Parts: sequence; structure tokens; C-alpha cells
Amino acid sequence: MSEQKSKRIVLASRPSGEPVDENFRLEEKELRPLAAGEVLLRTIYLSLDPYMRGRMSDAKSYAEPVPIGGVMEGGTVSQVVESQFDGLKAGAYVFGYTGWQSHAVAKGETLRQIDPSLAPLSTALGVLGMPGMTAYMGLLNIGQPKTGETVVVSAASGAVGAVVGQIAKLKGCRVVGIAGGVRKCEYVVKELGFDACVDHKDAGLAGLVKDACPEGIDIYFENVGGAVFEAVLPLLNDFARMPVCGLISHYNDSAPPPGPNKAPLLMRAVLTRRLTLRGFIVSDFAAQQGDFIRDVGQWLKEGKIKYLEDIVDGLEKAPKAFQGLLKGANFGKLVVRVADEKSSG
Amino acid sequence: MSEQKSKRIVLASRPSGEPVDENFRLEEKELRPLAAGEVLLRTIYLSLDPYMRGRMSDAKSYAEPVPIGGVMEGGTVSQVVESQFDGLKAGAYVFGYTGWQSHAVAKGETLRQIDPSLAPLSTALGVLGMPGMTAYMGLLNIGQPKTGETVVVSAASGAVGAVVGQIAKLKGCRVVGIAGGVRKCEYVVKELGFDACVDHKDAGLAGLVKDACPEGIDIYFENVGGAVFEAVLPLLNDFARMPVCGLISHYNDSAPPPGPNKAPLLMRAVLTRRLTLRGFIVSDFAAQQGDFIRDVGQWLKEGKIKYLEDIVDGLEKAPKAFQGLLKGANFGKLVVRVADEKSSG
Repeated sequence: MSEQKSKRIVLASRPSGEPVDENFRLEEKELRPLAAGEVLLRTIYLSLDPYMRGRMSDAKSYAEPVPIGGVMEGGTVSQVVESQFDGLKAGAYVFGYTGWQSHAVAKGETLRQIDPSLAPLSTALGVLGMPGMTAYMGLLNIGQPKTGETVVVSAASGAVGAVVGQIAKLKGCRVVGIAGGVRKCEYVVKELGFDACVDHKDAGLAGLVKDACPEGIDIYFENVGGAVFEAVLPLLNDFARMPVCGLISHYNDSAPPPGPNKAPLLMRAVLTRRLTLRGFIVSDFAAQQGDFIRDVGQWLKEGKIKYLEDIVDGLEKAPKAFQGLLKGANFGKLVVRVADEKSSG
Repeated sequence: MSEQKSKRIVLASRPSGEPVDENFRLEEKELRPLAAGEVLLRTIYLSLDPYMRGRMSDAKSYAEPVPIGGVMEGGTVSQVVESQFDGLKAGAYVFGYTGWQSHAVAKGETLRQIDPSLAPLSTALGVLGMPGMTAYMGLLNIGQPKTGETVVVSAASGAVGAVVGQIAKLKGCRVVGIAGGVRKCEYVVKELGFDACVDHKDAGLAGLVKDACPEGIDIYFENVGGAVFEAVLPLLNDFARMPVCGLISHYNDSAPPPGPNKAPLLMRAVLTRRLTLRGFIVSDFAAQQGDFIRDVGQWLKEGKIKYLEDIVDGLEKAPKAFQGLLKGANFGKLVVRVADEKSSG
């Protein structure tokens, strides 16, 4: 193997509030030679997801933060360039967590091979990947939807929300999305088949959600927090379930918002309406991955689940695209195309 | 039947903040004659419980408020004086929700007969009644204790908390109580067998709870909210469960506390540590009442569960005793002895 250089985006500094360009730095680094069991990869697609904001901070969370100077973490679809791992040949396509870089050296056993004939490669980062599995696991395990129930999902046109709503429809629920802007709302209703969608940028948010949920809310799939959560909370029915998947509206908070302190009101609602709030991350349900692949793969094939991708070209665009993601600027699953699918050598 | 007068305590006005004497009024009223299927009861014991504060307000809750001028609601142990109901004879002891009054006319089918030879009559309001069943249902169904886990229970010497902790010990857990004052803490450890107890009146509350839970907290049985909850929250382990049974520290709130708004911090903890918060009331688990009676009855007989009652004599003392209950002035299950167990005719 000739020495391979990798373009990579590292965490230059920790953001205070919204991430800015200066928190990221583009570098080039020569990769070390392969050891036994390792492969050299060229990245094709890099997934950008809200959870990455958490990795940029050093607050306690379910995962270690990215160290200063470290490559930003992220899921990727890559092609094997060279292999010292028996299970993967050069040319194979794989999913892995190899981060924001053009090339990577990775242990073969940490990668999952993808069959490019089954679905477009990029879907391994979206509807058939972590976001789709997150939707499936949270809705079915925690939400436990029943026919005729009302399900509300925030960030409804996003990578997770779009799948949540479509599965809930397949389960016979009334589904109301909450999304940012008229265009996203139209997409959610007309393309994805939700029963209604409310624009969270509308000043009358609380009233609109109420109008869209005449029988209250049985499941609220929480992706955002903030004003959307406050609009939903009064509408939750007795015994409502709330899978807590994300809180994107708070990821840039550098301090708790001003008062009054609404935590006691939240707890009062939990008590008197016997709500269940449960946080989760997708890996909590790793044992059910086979069910996910089988069900969602089948629904995709049958055209019962649709998806939309927002593809940005060029690794160097990742920091700006990620900053936009936290503000809802993307439309569909945000993916960076780092290189062409077909090898240019 | 000669006309029977009933002394009764009615809701004179709704409290704003702490209930005061003026919110209650002692009246005497003549009871109507019995209809078919009804019984005339004389009250022996009246249970005073924190949930009654909720019934005094007209805020939305799981139950209708007591109307102004209506008899205060409450569970009672009574004796049948006269019966037009086939299933109950004069002299029988019954449990019912007949409220804060000396006598009542009730439908026989709403009452549950008590065998006075099995346990003291007053236990039907405590360890073998609603509070004991609340403890059993919340801990086992929502808390799901496993051997070796750490369980924290607030209001630990109270009617619910004392049973929670003792069942958790029987399930092999490390049990830490939180109670108000040295005397209650001593009782919880020395008499009830908890591993430790922290006095919530101590200014160093957060540090003391931390010291008492070196391996974090797997189950927090929530009875109080407020500062106790804030001391517990940072210590909850990944996948911790929180049965939300009561929030007594907030029942007298007339407005949300001042900021900052800690609701987002709470939700962040739910998300990153994958907590489960679930509110409940005892009737949600009515189908398991037989299990409760069997298990707790057995444990009582074997001396594995102990209980303490704080008995106040005289119906007219109920309002003051209830005001004290909300401040933690009672020590053990608070019960009003309205009349002697043996009929005085």
C-alpha cells in the first residue's frame, strides 16, 4: 500500500451555543499502514445527524465527547480500497462509524457490508440505517401504537420523524406531524401520507396542534423539545407514551432557559395523567435489528415507506451543512457525498 | 330507621397555596332514609392522604374536585348500623370512600367488607389499604427492582414510602430513604431496616444522598418532588426507573416556581440516561389487588413488613391534621379516629 492521505474535519474547539465555522478545522493526514484485520476505506457518503452536537460538548452523556483535535464522529458508507481482513474484499461497500474524513483505516470486524443491489447505498445512513432504526425501535417499543390512536411526531420531515409517522400510519394511527415551514408540512401530508402537519414556525402553534388532535395525543415522539413540547404537553391523554429520542431545540443551549421553572408542571402532568416518558438510543434495541431490516426493507420494497435525502457535495461543506441541520435548514435526511460511488481509482 | 344526623367536614372554599382552617367547615346534616341496596354507616377511622389536596383545587387532574360545600372525600373504615343491602348485615365492618363525616348512607355494592380478626381495622387504610397497595404496585410494576440495585424512596417514613422500602429490601435491593428529621430517619433505618436514610431538612442534602448511593440510583420512587428530586436526578443511573406517585412539595404551589426553567435539563437526563418516568395511581393496577392482599398480608403475618400509625382523635381535628400532613408533621400513616371500634349504640 502506498501511503494514503486522508482529508478530515477535526473538532478545533468546543462550541458555546451554536457551532460556528471556527469549531471545525479541515486537515490532511497521512494514514498509517494496514495491520492484520484492517481495511483501507474511501468514504462515499457521510451521515450528518443531530446527535453529533452532543459529541462536541464535554457534558456527561451516553457517549464520550470527541477530543479536541479529534476527527468528528459520524456514520459512513465507504468502499474497501485495500484489505487485510478476510471477510472483506477490495471493492466491497460497507457501513461503519469512520467519521468526517475522506479515507480511513478501520478494523474489518467493526464494519457491516452493504449489498448495493438491494437499495441505494445512501439509504444505509437513513431509512435503512440508524435514523430509520431509531424511528422503528422508539415507536414500536416505547410508543406501542394501537389502531385509532393519535400519534404526534416532531421534526416530521426529518430522517427519523418521517419514518415514525409512516410506520404509525401502517399501524392504523391518526398521525400529525410538526415541521418547520409550509414546504415541509406539504411534503409530510402529500408525499408521506400523514393526516395533518403543523408548522412550528406559526405563532399559533399551540392552537394548531390542538385543532389537529381533536381526541388528544396518545403518543408523542419527541425529537425537538422547547416550544413544540410545550404545545404538545397539555394535549397528552391519560396513559400517553413519549419516546424521548432527541431535543434538538436545546442542543445549542449554553445555560438553562429563563424561568419560571416548568419542571414541576411537567412532573404534575406525568403524575395526574399517568404519562410514560422514556429516553432511548438506537443501540438499546440492537437485539431487534433483524426485525427492523426485515420490516422496513419489506415496506420500502412495497412502496409503503418513502424517503427523501438532502445530499450535499464535498466533505468541506460538512460543517456548514451540520450548522444548518441544527436550525432545520435541511429538507430530508442530510448526507454529505464525499466521493463518487464508482471508484475513480 | 330513626333520622340519623351526620357531622361532616365540607370544603368551604378552595385554598390558594397552603390550606387554612377557613377552607373547611364543620356541619351537621340529617341523612336521608335508606333506599333499597343501601346501608347506614358509622365511621370509625378516616384516612388522611396527600392526594386530598388535589381534590380541593379545581385544576385538571385524574379525579373531579370536591365541589364547594361538598363533603371532603376520603377512605374510611365504618361499621354497618342498618342495612337494606343483602350482602352486609348490621355490625359488619367495611372499607369505603365515604368521606370526612361521622355517618354516611352508601350503596352496599361500593363497600368492601373487612374481617377484623385478620389485622387491626385501621390497617385497611394503610399498609393493607390504598397506601400499601400504591407502594406495591408502583415499585413492582414500574420500578421492577432487581437484586443488588439501589432504590431511593422519598417520604420514606410515610404510609407509602415505608412499604416501598421494605418491599425493596425483600427484593434484595440496597434501600435509601429520604425523610424529614432525625427521628423519622432513625425509625426508617432501625425499625424498617433501610440501609440508610437522609434527612431532607439537612442543607447538605445533595451530598448526603450521593454519599448514601455510591453506585448511583436504579429506582427512585417519587413522592415529593422539589429539592429532593433535584438531589436525586444527577444520581440516576442509565436505564433508571422512576415511578411518579406523588409530588407533595408542590401541592400547595399557586404558581410555577421561579427560574431558571429546569424542564429541559430534566428531559436531557431522560434522553441521555434513558430514564423511564411513569406516573400512576393505585387504581391503574386494580386487576392485581389480589396479588397485593396475598403478598403483603403474608409479609405482615411473618413480621417482614412493619407499619406505624399516627392516630388523631376526633373528626373535628381532621382539618388541622391534614394541614400538618402536607408539611410532614405526622409520623406514620395519618388516621383520624372518628368513633370507637366498639359500637356505643
